[in-house]
Amino acid sequence: MRRALLLVSMLLPATSLAGEGKWMPQQVLELGPGWVKQQGFGLPLDRLWSEKAGGGLLSNAVQLPGCSGSFVSAQGLLITNHHCVVGILQEHSTPQANLTKDGYLARAAVDEKPAKAFRVQVPRAFRDVTKDVLAAIPKDVDDLGRFKAVEAKQKALVAECEIQPGTRCVFGTFDGGRFFTITEFTELTDVRLVYAPPGQVGDFGGEVDNWMWPRHSGDFALLRVYEGGKPYQPKWWFPVSTRGLKPGDAVAVLGYPGVSFRAWLADEVAERQARFYPQVRELSAEWVAIMEAEGKKSPEVAIATADDLRALLNRRKNSEGQLAGLARGRIVEGMREAEARVEAFAKKQGLTDAVAAHDALAALHQEKLSTWDRDFLLDTSSHGARAFGWPLLVARRSWEAQRPDAERELGYQERDLPRLRERLERDQKRYAPTADFALAMSWLRRALALPKAQRIETVDTVFGGLKDEAAVAAKLKALIGPSKLFTLAERMKMFDEGVPQLMTRKDPLLDFALGLDVERRRLRDRREAWAGRALQLRPRWRAAVLALAARPVAPDANSTLRVTFGRVRGYSPRDGVTMEAQTSLAGVLEKHTGVEPFDVPLKIREAVAAKKPARFVDPRLKDVPVDFLADCDTTGGNSGSPVIDGQGRLVGVNFDRVWENVANDFGYNPAVARNVSADVRYLLWLLAEVEGAGDLLKELGAD
Amino acid sequence: MRRALLLVSMLLPATSLAGEGKWMPQQVLELGPGWVKQQGFGLPLDRLWSEKAGGGLLSNAVQLPGCSGSFVSAQGLLITNHHCVVGILQEHSTPQANLTKDGYLARAAVDEKPAKAFRVQVPRAFRDVTKDVLAAIPKDVDDLGRFKAVEAKQKALVAECEIQPGTRCVFGTFDGGRFFTITEFTELTDVRLVYAPPGQVGDFGGEVDNWMWPRHSGDFALLRVYEGGKPYQPKWWFPVSTRGLKPGDAVAVLGYPGVSFRAWLADEVAERQARFYPQVRELSAEWVAIMEAEGKKSPEVAIATADDLRALLNRRKNSEGQLAGLARGRIVEGMREAEARVEAFAKKQGLTDAVAAHDALAALHQEKLSTWDRDFLLDTSSHGARAFGWPLLVARRSWEAQRPDAERELGYQERDLPRLRERLERDQKRYAPTADFALAMSWLRRALALPKAQRIETVDTVFGGLKDEAAVAAKLKALIGPSKLFTLAERMKMFDEGVPQLMTRKDPLLDFALGLDVERRRLRDRREAWAGRALQLRPRWRAAVLALAARPVAPDANSTLRVTFGRVRGYSPRDGVTMEAQTSLAGVLEKHTGVEPFDVPLKIREAVAAKKPARFVDPRLKDVPVDFLADCDTTGGNSGSPVIDGQGRLVGVNFDRVWENVANDFGYNPAVARNVSADVRYLLWLLAEVEGAGDLLKELGAD
Repeated sequence: MRRALLLVSMLLPATSLAGEGKWMPQQVLELGPGWVKQQGFGLPLDRLWSEKAGGGLLSNAVQLPGCSGSFVSAQGLLITNHHCVVGILQEHSTPQANLTKDGYLARAAVDEKPAKAFRVQVPRAFRDVTKDVLAAIPKDVDDLGRFKAVEAKQKALVAECEIQPGTRCVFGTFDGGRFFTITEFTELTDVRLVYAPPGQVGDFGGEVDNWMWPRHSGDFALLRVYEGGKPYQPKWWFPVSTRGLKPGDAVAVLGYPGVSFRAWLADEVAERQARFYPQVRELSAEWVAIMEAEGKKSPEVAIATADDLRALLNRRKNSEGQLAGLARGRIVEGMREAEARVEAFAKKQGLTDAVAAHDALAALHQEKLSTWDRDFLLDTSSHGARAFGWPLLVARRSWEAQRPDAERELGYQERDLPRLRERLERDQKRYAPTADFALAMSWLRRALALPKAQRIETVDTVFGGLKDEAAVAAKLKALIGPSKLFTLAERMKMFDEGVPQLMTRKDPLLDFALGLDVERRRLRDRREAWAGRALQLRPRWRAAVLALAARPVAPDANSTLRVTFGRVRGYSPRDGVTMEAQTSLAGVLEKHTGVEPFDVPLKIREAVAAKKPARFVDPRLKDVPVDFLADCDTTGGNSGSPVIDGQGRLVGVNFDRVWENVANDFGYNPAVARNVSADVRYLLWLLAEVEGAGDLLKELGAD
Repeated sequence: MRRALLLVSMLLPATSLAGEGKWMPQQVLELGPGWVKQQGFGLPLDRLWSEKAGGGLLSNAVQLPGCSGSFVSAQGLLITNHHCVVGILQEHSTPQANLTKDGYLARAAVDEKPAKAFRVQVPRAFRDVTKDVLAAIPKDVDDLGRFKAVEAKQKALVAECEIQPGTRCVFGTFDGGRFFTITEFTELTDVRLVYAPPGQVGDFGGEVDNWMWPRHSGDFALLRVYEGGKPYQPKWWFPVSTRGLKPGDAVAVLGYPGVSFRAWLADEVAERQARFYPQVRELSAEWVAIMEAEGKKSPEVAIATADDLRALLNRRKNSEGQLAGLARGRIVEGMREAEARVEAFAKKQGLTDAVAAHDALAALHQEKLSTWDRDFLLDTSSHGARAFGWPLLVARRSWEAQRPDAERELGYQERDLPRLRERLERDQKRYAPTADFALAMSWLRRALALPKAQRIETVDTVFGGLKDEAAVAAKLKALIGPSKLFTLAERMKMFDEGVPQLMTRKDPLLDFALGLDVERRRLRDRREAWAGRALQLRPRWRAAVLALAARPVAPDANSTLRVTFGRVRGYSPRDGVTMEAQTSLAGVLEKHTGVEPFDVPLKIREAVAAKKPARFVDPRLKDVPVDFLADCDTTGGNSGSPVIDGQGRLVGVNFDRVWENVANDFGYNPAVARNVSADVRYLLWLLAEVEGAGDLLKELGAD
């Protein structure tokens, strides 16, 4: 981090949009005690973060598979989301005891359920490795070479770091290559389930409420981490607050947000708004219509396509949210204005290098656009029909198998093969021939309509020159008919055959996919070269952006540790409607229909009906609080992130964003930027009034 | 009204639920100046209402066909809802000038568009006729005789009153027959259109937003009433307020609410909750499914059934709203508790007559329940399939034609025949044989499943004993196949034939309907007898209810003049969501999609974009207000009702209730009882910034 420190240490005190910014812990020090106090945090800075101490309260955000979490006791008790431990629940579920449905409470240490494969990574050291990385790039190397050199160095640095036992090391690229870091984690693998609420608490509202507000999920779980057979003693842990929160209160969210795109050029985001999301929406809508139409004709098809349909509906909903958010937040327009200011500044300051880098990035973007339609179709060729997806998977797997494991594309290494095999098997029952054929035709129709300069050769070779759609359909049938790909056993055999062996099969559909795969790999190579060029250009442009900002600027999310400060706050999704910042138990019962995803477990309804003077009632809400909104700057990966108050006490667990805030990854819109958290008092109420889990309450300091 | 006055004049000062009560103007005097002041009304009582003056500001609520309205200038300018003048707009629309779509502004008197058939009724005198009515009931008459006697007296009183020229008289039954009134209206028939906004202002949001909040409709229209060729000079009219309103402000709504059921017994409302609305919802849902399925098979069927489908969807939505509202407001439970209190009170006070009346009403209700399923099906026999609806209409029409016009059932008198003929013609293009057959089968299936004690004879005679559903379908086909009813010309001929002539036709479907009609008429006779019995019982029970209340109690709505006092107020439809009390112009544009019903006319969008310092901006909203909520106690018939502030100035025009408040007709739930009004400042803004209608603004005192 030293380099980041040097870059910004001379800058003026920060004034940034409330809530905006996924700050690196080091940046919080740079923002200074005044700024932190302004955020409502009264703790001394060095309790939050100290380089000397190798962390602080801010480093009590541990990384879980795809999620974040935090310690809440000195005895290794860890809190995260219910949806982050679903794998553990499934692992221990039997026909007699369905933990996913019923939840689980270990009343004693011996009852805790060990997770077979669940890693907790506790951060321990943060190192800037920019110098090493830059030194590894040969002079006068071309774009692809630059990409490969950085990739190789990354692998080497991680391998070197992980020589230490029980250590996991994560490489981070910041600001498009302006600097690079390695985070060292202590990896703990003895993780045991302590408490999970019933599914209809943890995932209450399911897909219907996903991304929605008002929300009423108790999306919590408690794990305990062990080391050497004894409860792990974390260096930092959060006391749990029973005092709760109210609108206007200061909160911070800590964790490992995955990815965001705010350092993109306006042109690049404009491509998302004008091309990518509209195309995704349109394609998803067409495929949804196909599945629904075919599903209506046959219940078997409806069952087979149910999961795919759900995923497509989700993708369509997401793309609609992105488009609505980009438009409502005027994200691209704002970026364009900001970019013009930086350009003017750079020209005035004689930062010609930055201006040139910007122009070159813009030219690179134009180059990408020139084959956009074809590339989009190449990407989606494996997403729709399994008649294309299966042979494409087989083709790529066989091609990658020819190379040393370390050089293979991510997802096709030896470690990935069991998962791929499982998928091939599982997908057999998701295959519905009529719907699949219609999906394949939908894709082919688009591929055959591509402009002249962007043709897909393999498609032209096989389907070109046919006189009408009926002929295309007949040809497709001729590929599918004799193919062995649709028999599970044959497909599994193919999966382990080499490319030459596959070719001797003379399976016409497989041959088509082998041809398509060549073009898909060519596209991958071009993208790596583009990435190599951007690695050189973007840091030079970002330097000018930072120079004009003259204050710390939070880099884009990249799965490294971040903290975001905000306030508990409702919002207005549209004229005449106010979303309150908090929900309560009454709202849970209000949604109860008795049918999933709104089926409140009987024991919860009984506990509410008992109406004994319940504990953990919020004095303002006059009810037990359930979920709350804040204007913290979160994204995917922040699931399970601790939410702490200004005194460093845990008040909640982050689990979602609102739909109006989905486009947040491109720009922060204070009017609708709201993260959704479960109030820890709901967990305490469950433990006290429903589960009678006195020992746990005691350990949490809430008895 | 004197009788009502006598009954309550000894009672204590009232304390009633804020907003609850559709008060008769006379009752406002009884409630007293202190109460009226508490409602936020600073006007002297005698300006609101004075028996001596034959009215007051409260009588500036005129009755329009199905709507209410009010005068807003000394020159007969009248304001009501856009949706109340749709007939006038259609009358003057041509292919060249579509007033329904584009709206209309008469810039001078000569441009005003006369309405062919539009009556304005200005109330002029209010008389209690209880004595006359009661005197007309013979001693020892049976139930049906009692009903017939009151009906005959009603007709006689109205006829006698209407001898005065230009007079329309309306009979009112209050509290189930506790007292009766005649209201004398001056009937004005020279009514001309002055201003209607474009359809996409007046009906913005259409069916999608119907019953919904937030709302953004400019549901206004201005008419001018003439008398003797000169603008009518109303005795009372409201000045228009440009000062607007804000949450918490006092308002009152005046008008002619149609019907409500709050004086029903708890058992009677329980029947709505447990039987009627669930059955309506279920039947509507089944018929919706039939139409959607058939519509999907054929675009012709989809077009033919579109209007019927919309009506069914609406009925389903309404029944869902009623059920949700009854449950949420705990209406039946509350009524049961109140009823128990009255019973205890009556027993304690020795009001044995009231207790006996209550028990007899309860027994009467039980009697109705004993044939509920059959009666419900007899009612719905004419609602679904036209294969039943058409012959049933023809059968009843011919049967009623045998009687003197005055004795015929309402809806089948000479004056009704043109409308019936139009409907028979119009419905021809709504007939889709496949869907209609499925609807008929749906009804038959239910009729054949009736319990033994509740069989429909005609159904049993024709369809009984058939071995399975296929046989029923074959039999139905055998009725429909040879029938001439489906040819428009033949059907119109039948419409004017007598019963014997119809019988000689030997049309099997017509014969079925003639049989069914006998049973439907028997049901009608039973209902009239039931009504006759209730006429005797309910007033005796209500007397005890009123005695316990010891304060004025607003009688159920019955299309007579009422006033309801309330406050501008938002509400919470569910945990975590607050509906603000007001919407604004920004929200109109927010909803604009360019596709109806959300297609904001260009001139409106341009006026907003012009951003000149607009007039009529609300200082708190910082925008032009559009619609607002208040907790006034309204129902159907209150469309177009004036909304006035505490100074008696017009601030808006009522046009809807929120969906959560649909069950309001059974009981007032203060948490969700909200009426929806258009803010008059939106109209003024349209006139000023869009239409440049300076003269009108001047006449409204808002220039």
